[in-house]
Parts: sequence; structure tokens; C-alpha cells
Amino acid sequence: MSVVPLVEYDDAAPEVRAVYDDIMATRGTDWINNFWKALAHDPVLLRRTWESVKEVMAPGALDPLTKEMIYVAVSATNNCEYCIRSHTTAARAKGMSDQMLMEVLSVVGMANETNRLANGLQVPVDEAFLGKD
Amino acid sequence: MSVVPLVEYDDAAPEVRAVYDDIMATRGTDWINNFWKALAHDPVLLRRTWESVKEVMAPGALDPLTKEMIYVAVSATNNCEYCIRSHTTAARAKGMSDQMLMEVLSVVGMANETNRLANGLQVPVDEAFLGKD
Amino acid sequence: MSVVPLVEYDDAAPEVRAVYDDIMATRGTDWINNFWKALAHDPVLLRRTWESVKEVMAPGALDPLTKEMIYVAVSATNNCEYCIRSHTTAARAKGMSDQMLMEVLSVVGMANETNRLANGLQVPVDEAFLGKD
Amino acid sequence: MSVVPLVEYDDAAPEVRAVYDDIMATRGTDWINNFWKALAHDPVLLRRTWESVKEVMAPGALDPLTKEMIYVAVSATNNCEYCIRSHTTAARAKGMSDQMLMEVLSVVGMANETNRLANGLQVPVDEAFLGKD
Amino acid sequence: MSVVPLVEYDDAAPEVRAVYDDIMATRGTDWINNFWKALAHDPVLLRRTWESVKEVMAPGALDPLTKEMIYVAVSATNNCEYCIRSHTTAARAKGMSDQMLMEVLSVVGMANETNRLANGLQVPVDEAFLGKD
Amino acid sequence: MSVVPLVEYDDAAPEVRAVYDDIMATRGTDWINNFWKALAHDPVLLRRTWESVKEVMAPGALDPLTKEMIYVAVSATNNCEYCIRSHTTAARAKGMSDQMLMEVLSVVGMANETNRLANGLQVPVDEAFLGKD
Repeated sequence: MSVVPLVEYDDAAPEVRAVYDDIMATRGTDWINNFWKALAHDPVLLRRTWESVKEVMAPGALDPLTKEMIYVAVSATNNCEYCIRSHTTAARAKGMSDQMLMEVLSVVGMANETNRLANGLQVPVDEAFLGKD
Repeated sequence: MSVVPLVEYDDAAPEVRAVYDDIMATRGTDWINNFWKALAHDPVLLRRTWESVKEVMAPGALDPLTKEMIYVAVSATNNCEYCIRSHTTAARAKGMSDQMLMEVLSVVGMANETNRLANGLQVPVDEAFLGKD
Repeated sequence: MSVVPLVEYDDAAPEVRAVYDDIMATRGTDWINNFWKALAHDPVLLRRTWESVKEVMAPGALDPLTKEMIYVAVSATNNCEYCIRSHTTAARAKGMSDQMLMEVLSVVGMANETNRLANGLQVPVDEAFLGKD
Repeated sequence: MSVVPLVEYDDAAPEVRAVYDDIMATRGTDWINNFWKALAHDPVLLRRTWESVKEVMAPGALDPLTKEMIYVAVSATNNCEYCIRSHTTAARAKGMSDQMLMEVLSVVGMANETNRLANGLQVPVDEAFLGKD
Repeated sequence: MSVVPLVEYDDAAPEVRAVYDDIMATRGTDWINNFWKALAHDPVLLRRTWESVKEVMAPGALDPLTKEMIYVAVSATNNCEYCIRSHTTAARAKGMSDQMLMEVLSVVGMANETNRLANGLQVPVDEAFLGKD
Repeated sequence: MSVVPLVEYDDAAPEVRAVYDDIMATRGTDWINNFWKALAHDPVLLRRTWESVKEVMAPGALDPLTKEMIYVAVSATNNCEYCIRSHTTAARAKGMSDQMLMEVLSVVGMANETNRLANGLQVPVDEAFLGKD
């Protein structure tokens, strides 16, 4: 069970329903996942988070699949089970194969390892990496 | 200064030079960045880390640029300055524009935010996200 | 199940019972939550942790409710389920409404996002923020 | 130096200037700190982040000072120097004394400690903490 | 259930079986734990990770028990339940008593606390700690 | 510069001097490192932290060198520069060779890697790892 009650569509205030409707329309689905139902306890937080996610995950200089895989990578690093499960599902729906997932996680594992080697050894940044501005 | 002395090529033992040579040959460069010079203090760690990074970052189901952007995403999440600087440089060399970088970081920021919202609210995972195995 | 056995009051050594008694007296309750029962496996760790928590969470320049909300904020950032659940309960007992909780988590989410944007972009600290000592 | 160039007001595009103007008007200041100048490299990210921060940090069920202290607590947990410095400065401007800061950090320290004790021992959550929904 | 199917020995490809056989031979056991069965979905990742773990955890300047306790310490800091459980089990098999575990976690807790105090206060590093290289 | 002024011995209140004296006596040194000088801004925090560190790091079921290496491992995982530098120095003073440090960091790197592989794949914990209580 979550820390606050989940808000179901039928019980939702109009401003919450409006967000739910936009989520379903944008995604072409007919259901709302629990994350939004928990956020709905604060309609301002719900609306802001949804608008931000929608904007961030839209096609841009990066395609939506690449963005989803980056989302998975961060969620695995932070160990957020909900986010790992939901964004792995979303990435698969956008075309991520199991082999691609294993490679995402291979990079995540390696980066988490070398991040700590660089930290632990306090390696000074090379001049060549400090080029801009 | 780093926690252990950096090992320069001219002072390096043969097994360290062999790794340095392979790094330069693989990357088509004529210099070694400080990360490897610090690891070289333990030739077994140097060799294993380099062989692993080379294998992980090679083209596969994901292209090398996507892998570098995931590396940047994890390093920004963990706040490893060395890794942020070196892998941002590497990603740019492989074609990442500034706009692409800003979008990587936009996803990183959003994922770090929603990871904590999902954690803090202890949102239960939807059945639909628990499909496989 | 926990990694070490939970120590129940009836089975506890005198120095553990003394801490349990102080926890119940300080909190005005008649039960001990599992965290302390696990720590009790090492009476020195139990006593030190309890004495520290009691001192830190007492009224001071900050009131106990503010301190509990900060505890929730850190626990959500670190994704410690036990701590999220126990300190959210404690904060509610001290007056935190659901709306206050949602605002705590809104700040937590935003801070986790901008922390990574500042890291990823390696933004230099402004002189104006470096005033003291 | 940052990873992307800082965008100064005089060089900024109109949509960036509009955000800068709103930041200065909202805060009653006549300068822009580096964080926004780095984000400005992506005007959409700049606008979204500013609008979100403005909304989150406004008075609500929590007062702005409490919100700033929570921001400091998360930033100290994540070790984001820029955010620690900027939000400590902001919290002081809103009335945080040095003693209050020390108590914020005392709670942050204790929470980071007990988060790991609870994790490391895998303490099961008490029924009493699982009340709602 | 895991995000990818677990690969059982009987269903495994020859290169996966070869790694499984080496795990069992090295450890003197007749079963494979789930971690490797999940990695086996990508035989290259499986082989690299196993070879690396085998090399890192072998006796060296540090004995295997000390290495296992460090593994537990990192896993508790990162809150990886799987790793906490598996490496606590492994450390016990190598001689870690419950009192030793409690002391490992006591240090982990204290380090996580003082890490944040040092970060939050931005304490400058003493000259005396910057001796080498 | 730190976020609060460092408190030098000559300017310290009696209760701060008493802690400083105990630090120097316990360590057999004639100086105080900056961490304590920053904490001294809150004498209660200073005393509690010192008493806790002294108790945790004393010889017990684990020897002081092993404890220092675990401190380094956690600090490298969390990327606390101050703590990495000070505890690496302390561990060396207690007998840690450079090779031992490299092996500590090798385990830290590997643990940080496999922690994320286990998280990202959501590997279920084996029954064999769930034995006690």
C-alpha cells in the first residue's frame, strides 16, 4: 500500500480527471498507472509532474526510445523498483529488445564501477576534458 | 593530486605499457588520460577495467553514442566530476550535440525527481509492469 | 525477515531493556518498533543510536515536526522503505497533514532533479554564494 | 568552467530574457546566478525548471524557509556543492540561523546513518507503520 | 519475478553452462544463485561479470573475508537487497560472526553520517591529507 | 571555505576545547583537522559525533584497520572528498599499503556495479540467502 491513498478516476476531482484524460490520450491507453494515482493526492504536483514528463519525453534531438533507456539507467542506479519496472515496460513498448536492455544495464554497471574508482582515487580531470567556456 | 601517484608511460612496467598501447590503438589517440594512469598502480585492476570498458562500449545492440550518453547520465546522477567531464567529451566526439546533451540531462533530472516521488509515496507496482518470467 | 534475529523485550538483556524502557518512556508508548529490536543484537550500537536519535530529534532551534519532515526527505532520497514508513508515521503524529507531506516530497523531487542538472552541467558556484569564512 | 557556455543576459534570446526577468522580479534581485545561465542553453529546460521551482518553493502548507531547509538537506545528502551553497544562502536570507543549519545537518547525518542500518539489517516494516490505503 | 527470464542450467547454451560450471567448481557448490541466472540472458555480460568477481574476490593483499565485508558495506550503503542478502551470507560462510556484522554496519552508518556532515558544511580538505603525488 | 566558520582552539569555548583535547589525546596528535573545527560550531553535534566515532572505530570484533578500510569504501561510494582523503590517510597510518587500497577500491567498484545489475534486473532473492529469523 502507498503512503497516501490512490485516487481512482471515478473519485477524482475535475482537475485530476483532466490530467488523467490527457495521460490516456497522449499514450493511447485506457488506464492510469499507480504513480499518477498517488500524485493525484496533490493536484498541483500531479499536473506539474505530468506536464514536465510529457515535455521531457517527447521526440526532440533524442528519440523517445533513447530517452526511455536513459530513464531506465538512472532508475537502476537509484534503485527505484517502481521506476525500473514502469520504464522498462515503456522502453520495450517503444522497441527495446532484451539484448538492448542487457547492454543498457552493462553500461550502467560499468559507469557505477568507474565512477567510484575515479572518486576513490581522486583522479584529477585532464586538461583535454575542460575545453569549453 | 590523486590518492596514488599517476603512472606515466615512460615509468610503466611492461604489462601496464601493453594496456596503454591498446587504449591508444583502440581509440586512435596518442595519449593516456589520468584515470588509467591512476588505475595503473594496480596492473590487474588496470587490465580488467580496460578490457571491460572496451567490451561494454563496443558497438552492439546499442550504438557507441547511445552508450556514451547513458554513461553521462549515470555519472551525472552519481556526481562523479571526472566521469562527467571525460564521458561528455567522448560523447561529443561521437556526435552528441549540445542540444542532445541538454536532453540527456533533462531526462536525468526528471528521472531523479520521479524516482524520489515514487519512493517517498511507496507506490505499489502495477500488475501490468510485472509481465515477464 | 531481518538479517539478524529481532530481540523481544522478554528475551532482552538488562542493558537492552534499559534502552527499550527509555524509548517507551520518551515516546509515551508501550511497544518497541523493529528497528530497535534489530539493533539490540549489539547493545552498544543500540544505546548509541538511541541516545543520538533522542538528542538530535529533541526540540531545539528547529521544532520536532520540522526535523521529522527532514528525516522523511532524506529517507525518500535514499529510498529506505523502513525509514520512509516509520518517519512518515512519526511526522503525522506530530501534525504533518497529507498536503504537507506532498509538499515535502515536491521539494525532495525538485532538489533531486536540480542537483543532477547542476552536477551534469558542472555549474561553477557564484561568488555570492561563497560569503562566509 | 561549466560543460556548456553560460548565457549572459545581453546575449540571451528573448525567451531566455523573459525567464531571467521573471527570476529577478520574483526574487527582488538584479542578477542571475550561474545555474540558470547554464540551463539557458536549452530554453525549454530553463523555462520548465524555473516555473517548477517557482511553484514548488512558493508558500503553501509549508513555509518557504522550511522548504529551503529541506532543499539543503537533500543537496547535502546528494553532495551537490552548487546546490548546498546556493540553497544554504537562500535559507539564510529567509531566516535560517547557523544553529538551525547545524540542526538541519544533524538530522541529515542521523537519517543517512539509520537509513543504512535499516537497510543493512533488512528490518521488516512494523504493521503499525502500514496504516493507510 | 525478474525483468528478464532466469536461465536454468538445463536450458542454458554451452557458453553459459561453462560459466555455471566454473562458478560451482570455484565455490565448491552444486547450485547457481539467481543473480547469475538473470545475467545469463546476455552470455557476454555473464562471463565478464563472473571473471571480474572471481578475480576481485580472490585472496590478495586483502583476505576474502575482509573483501566480503566491504562488499556488504557498499551494498548496505546503496540499499541493494539482493546484494546485502547474498554477500552477508557469503561473509558468514567465510567466518563473519553476528558481532562482526554489527560492527561493519556501525562503521557504515557512521561513515554515511559524517560523509553528509562534511558535504553539508563543505569542509576544506586539510593539507595534511593531501600528501602524495 | 566552509559554510560555517572553522573554530580554532584558541577561540573555542571550554566544552569545545574539552573535545579537542580528547581527540588529540586519543589520537596521539597535536592538531585538530578541519572536520571537527566545522562541527564545533554546534558543540552538542561536535561532542556526539566525536564520542560516536571514537566508540565505533575502537578495536572490537573488527580491528581498527579493517574499520578504516570500510570507512574508505563507503566514502568512495558516496563521493565525499573530505572523507576519502582523511580516512585514506588514517588507514595508511594504521598499515594500509597502496596495494591494499587498490583492492579495497576494486571491491568497491565491483560492488557498485553488481548492485545496479541486481537492481536493474530485479533479481529475486534466493531462498538460501533468507535463512535467519
